[in-house]
Amino acid sequence: MNAFAMNCVGHQSHGLWRHPRDHSAEYTHTRHWVELAKLLERGKFDGLFLADVVGVYDVFGGNPDTALQEAVQVPTNDPLLIIPPMAEATDHLSFAVTCNLSHEPPLPFARRMSTLDHMTDGRIGWNIVTGYLDSGSKGAGKGEQVAHDIRYDIAEEFMSIQYGFWEGSWEDGAVVRDRETGVFTDPAKVHRVEHDGEYFKVSGIHICEPSPQRTPVLYQAGTSSKGMAFAAKHAECVFVGGRSRSKMAADVEKLRALAVEVGRDPSDIKVFALATVIADATAEGAKAKYDDYCTYLSVKGGLALVSGWTGMDFSDPEKLAAGPSSSNAIQSVAAMFADGAATGAEGVEAIGLSVALGGGGPVLVGNGKQIADELAAWAEESDLDGFNFTYVVMPETFEDIVEHVVPELQRRGLVKRDYVDGTYRDKLFGHGPRLDASHPAAAYRKGG
Amino acid sequence: MNAFAMNCVGHQSHGLWRHPRDHSAEYTHTRHWVELAKLLERGKFDGLFLADVVGVYDVFGGNPDTALQEAVQVPTNDPLLIIPPMAEATDHLSFAVTCNLSHEPPLPFARRMSTLDHMTDGRIGWNIVTGYLDSGSKGAGKGEQVAHDIRYDIAEEFMSIQYGFWEGSWEDGAVVRDRETGVFTDPAKVHRVEHDGEYFKVSGIHICEPSPQRTPVLYQAGTSSKGMAFAAKHAECVFVGGRSRSKMAADVEKLRALAVEVGRDPSDIKVFALATVIADATAEGAKAKYDDYCTYLSVKGGLALVSGWTGMDFSDPEKLAAGPSSSNAIQSVAAMFADGAATGAEGVEAIGLSVALGGGGPVLVGNGKQIADELAAWAEESDLDGFNFTYVVMPETFEDIVEHVVPELQRRGLVKRDYVDGTYRDKLFGHGPRLDASHPAAAYRKGG
Repeated sequence: MNAFAMNCVGHQSHGLWRHPRDHSAEYTHTRHWVELAKLLERGKFDGLFLADVVGVYDVFGGNPDTALQEAVQVPTNDPLLIIPPMAEATDHLSFAVTCNLSHEPPLPFARRMSTLDHMTDGRIGWNIVTGYLDSGSKGAGKGEQVAHDIRYDIAEEFMSIQYGFWEGSWEDGAVVRDRETGVFTDPAKVHRVEHDGEYFKVSGIHICEPSPQRTPVLYQAGTSSKGMAFAAKHAECVFVGGRSRSKMAADVEKLRALAVEVGRDPSDIKVFALATVIADATAEGAKAKYDDYCTYLSVKGGLALVSGWTGMDFSDPEKLAAGPSSSNAIQSVAAMFADGAATGAEGVEAIGLSVALGGGGPVLVGNGKQIADELAAWAEESDLDGFNFTYVVMPETFEDIVEHVVPELQRRGLVKRDYVDGTYRDKLFGHGPRLDASHPAAAYRKGG
Repeated sequence: MNAFAMNCVGHQSHGLWRHPRDHSAEYTHTRHWVELAKLLERGKFDGLFLADVVGVYDVFGGNPDTALQEAVQVPTNDPLLIIPPMAEATDHLSFAVTCNLSHEPPLPFARRMSTLDHMTDGRIGWNIVTGYLDSGSKGAGKGEQVAHDIRYDIAEEFMSIQYGFWEGSWEDGAVVRDRETGVFTDPAKVHRVEHDGEYFKVSGIHICEPSPQRTPVLYQAGTSSKGMAFAAKHAECVFVGGRSRSKMAADVEKLRALAVEVGRDPSDIKVFALATVIADATAEGAKAKYDDYCTYLSVKGGLALVSGWTGMDFSDPEKLAAGPSSSNAIQSVAAMFADGAATGAEGVEAIGLSVALGGGGPVLVGNGKQIADELAAWAEESDLDGFNFTYVVMPETFEDIVEHVVPELQRRGLVKRDYVDGTYRDKLFGHGPRLDASHPAAAYRKGG
């Protein structure tokens, strides 16, 4: 069980910042995030999954006006910086954070993650993304984005360097801290990372001492064929979206098969699905909440978001008919919405609504028992390991899950009653803080 | 009054991590930093100044072995991530953080600073550095560093883009947050930053809403002629080092004259000098502490540091005689040590000792009255506005300042008895949270 959020207003629920009980517009304050973290830990959530976008949704209408007006993931603040205070206020909740490797030089990024792994006592994960918005790339000073497939080649090189820093540069036991002999670090146990690749040239040691997990828990969300091959090789957790359970089941099966092909165990990858839950003590109460929320939905906001995801301008039926304008969009998402887009204005409105409420994923409405039934059936049907729950109203949606859904899931033995000790990786997989030997990162280790 | 520290072991006191009362090796823990911040706020320090280095000191002996063994600023963690929990635990203490712009893409960096300015309620400053270690540049995947002078040309462009994002992209009043009309941001008041320069091409809006100060308080520490011209134009606070008060006085005078030349007031720049204070209730007690500390000093550690600063290998008398091998070193520091280096082994040992204890700056030893006398005379003589106090033993050095020195300075009216409200800039200059009209950033503002 993850909560899904972003350091911005509204995230996946467009128009809902207008709701009188929504507090997501308080995202600039540390207190807002600390309170959320405490709530999630009270509800025994495994993690808080933080999305991120460096850029703005400016495909809709060819400008960022709608995104700005409706606060569609803009303004948005840095996700890394809210983690240390949340970690300090909790003991067990873990944090999976999205960072776009296109914007991160190898050594400073390796250090950021090592620092977070230290500060959280090993409760950190990294959601590996390569970016899909040209606006982000232009803001970073790089011009237009490089093509989708090449981005994964760059990502392969980037991962190799990161594994070198995290797993290979400092052996276990390199840090001696001997006050008597005056040796802090044994230089013989620290090794240079030498990488002379097509996209990066790196030569140097990691500048952080080994952190509890070394490599953070690795998340990935790509469902293109390149993306899935990348996930099968590197990811420990995969995040999937979409409303079709049969399509999801097929994707999950394919992903686990690909993992086996590269020498991993199918259970080495935990799969989480996007879900929105609107829960109450009674079915009627939940339905009333759903109806109330719907009066705030912004179709335009949803369409601005989906336009950015797909590279298709949903404000213009003609352009829409011509298909995606950019090969850099999230291809799997573009395919998902292509059929709806082809059905004209009604289809487009339906897409806007479905994205505005819960980001295009399933919306489950009911009492605890009904929600638990749905989640259990779906997890069974699609071979899922868990869910990333997005919110409609912050923090009400999560409060409702903690109050009405978690106790029911606990009664059925579907979620834990309490945390086990240890790092994020310990909690997820139960075999220690480090990546296991079948993961490609293990090949980078040096020494005893 | 600033405290000077770094997210690493020891920082400017080499060998002192071995001292039984030193806690600097606990830098990986959030609690360590939170306790320091609370201590500094209790002592009415204005700020915590955080140094940073992305890279390793590998000039000494041509390898990083000494730096590793003696923990000379390696391992070192990210400085940004420790700020949010410290800000959350304090109300008034400000934070000035060193970030090397060579490693920061423009938009993600603008966002990092805006996020910190939000999370600290405007208590953030940025120490602008361009880097001096080839090892850092290689670790970031960029090969060797670009030459010193060109680094300042790059910095000029970088600043222009940052001012565009921070000051120009979102007008005052752009964020409406009107729940009735559904307008979060008025798109007419948000503007693109268009920069087509030699080193950066950027086109896009800032993705953060305006923070309390917008541009963080700007620090700089360069004393080369290019560096000083840069500081005179951009800096609000300048950090100077060295033991010669007359040289410092001349530098400060030159700096203030340069500021006037570019249309600023000489008092628009606050100058802070590096100082190490070893204080106790009595002169004898302080002297005993000093003697005790000296038994832990690592000359080799000091020399590894100064070798990295200057690009001169202090492990090798022959190479040393040949002068600096790299034009990328901190030129002012190289000049400062060149004479000592020329005097042979004894001179080199003296340099090692002076750097090992307090980073080459003055070390003041005494009771509160003696220290206050020294600081007051020096500030007068060199036209200083304040000091960056480095530590010998963490946190003992700061505890001693708070207990023995601050009350004496307060009695004399040399430091405040309590904080004034407002942002870091309010506290330093007293005319509001924003940069004033004579600063070049003001030209980037748009709208009413």
